[in-house]
Amino acid sequence: MITVALAKGALLQDSITCLQAAGLDFSTLTAPGNRQLMVDSPCGRARALLVRNADVPVYVAYGQAQLGVVGDDVLREHPLELARLVDLEFGGCRMAVAVKCSSPYRRAADLPAHCRVASKFIHCARTFFDGLDLPVDLIQLQGSVELGPLTGMSEAIVDLVATGRTLQENGLVAIEDLFLSTARLVGNPLALRMDRGRLQGVVEAVRHVAQIRSRQR
Amino acid sequence: MITVALAKGALLQDSITCLQAAGLDFSTLTAPGNRQLMVDSPCGRARALLVRNADVPVYVAYGQAQLGVVGDDVLREHPLELARLVDLEFGGCRMAVAVKCSSPYRRAADLPAHCRVASKFIHCARTFFDGLDLPVDLIQLQGSVELGPLTGMSEAIVDLVATGRTLQENGLVAIEDLFLSTARLVGNPLALRMDRGRLQGVVEAVRHVAQIRSRQR
Repeated sequence: MITVALAKGALLQDSITCLQAAGLDFSTLTAPGNRQLMVDSPCGRARALLVRNADVPVYVAYGQAQLGVVGDDVLREHPLELARLVDLEFGGCRMAVAVKCSSPYRRAADLPAHCRVASKFIHCARTFFDGLDLPVDLIQLQGSVELGPLTGMSEAIVDLVATGRTLQENGLVAIEDLFLSTARLVGNPLALRMDRGRLQGVVEAVRHVAQIRSRQR
Repeated sequence: MITVALAKGALLQDSITCLQAAGLDFSTLTAPGNRQLMVDSPCGRARALLVRNADVPVYVAYGQAQLGVVGDDVLREHPLELARLVDLEFGGCRMAVAVKCSSPYRRAADLPAHCRVASKFIHCARTFFDGLDLPVDLIQLQGSVELGPLTGMSEAIVDLVATGRTLQENGLVAIEDLFLSTARLVGNPLALRMDRGRLQGVVEAVRHVAQIRSRQR
């Protein structure tokens, strides 16, 4: 039995579609009224675990899932020993520094030293500002990071931007990208090493699906 | 203007009812279709910030809110310099160690050394097991902690239990409580020190409401 950890939220539908094209049907996860977090595929060869974004790398790293689908942003924020197998190219978004539209700062490097920056992605933000050699006071938030500048708590934020609508609605503007992020297929290194072909078969099927979709774009 | 940080989720309705009885009306936060995270009370004397549980102590500690309502569990998990003002006595739940019903362990101290324990409340769990002098391998999860034992990733979990329904539905049983938790009114220490009476007036009104409700129980 192959277990695949899938992330709740924005990536879920595309993850299911991609795996379905590769032969693993977990569509019952999004069936109306489903409350189960663990479902078997009708073929009986595979099981899906539906977990929070940041928990996908944990289940794969500990080997409870051999494979997982999760955003590159999460992998960068929670570095664990995982095999990065396929860039699935959906769920595209960027990690960006944003400030109020009225802010005088238009590049991250212009931000004043020791200013406050709010983020859910403390590790990514720390790495970025360390790279700029700019010491900032990072404030970890769990959600609604846009409230940081709106309440005056922070000068800037580091957050994921997909359409940019949330920033716009809150009078914020992105001034610099840290990186672009897309969904990735990841694997447990030990499980891949011990694999007798079935796991590799799934990985190849997913890679094939991703290549076809990439050409169609 | 007094700003009060309120936690989204289970505590929100009771928080609004309590503050309303104390003279601050933030009921527009739960009005149908409301998307605003910052609302002013009709009296114009106060503003509410609607944020995630763990963000309430942050906004109060940084002074963007002078007061906040949040569960004691969150205050214990994210220790920040806050004044604990009133035990509001609603939102009661307990932080507990739970295992599978089929587990042979019936006390936390019986768990084998170096076993894995999954939790969203890593700090609380660490403090508890350190107190037992029992070294365990803590696994931080963001949600659906009950999947830890179900998938075989962990022997036990440390999680909040309100009705116990989630545990029961997943074949788990609580074997020991770490502490009981209720909602608390907290304040920014500096704001309280600089206060000329208005903040203290709100605190006293909330304390009065809490006392009346306590007697009614």
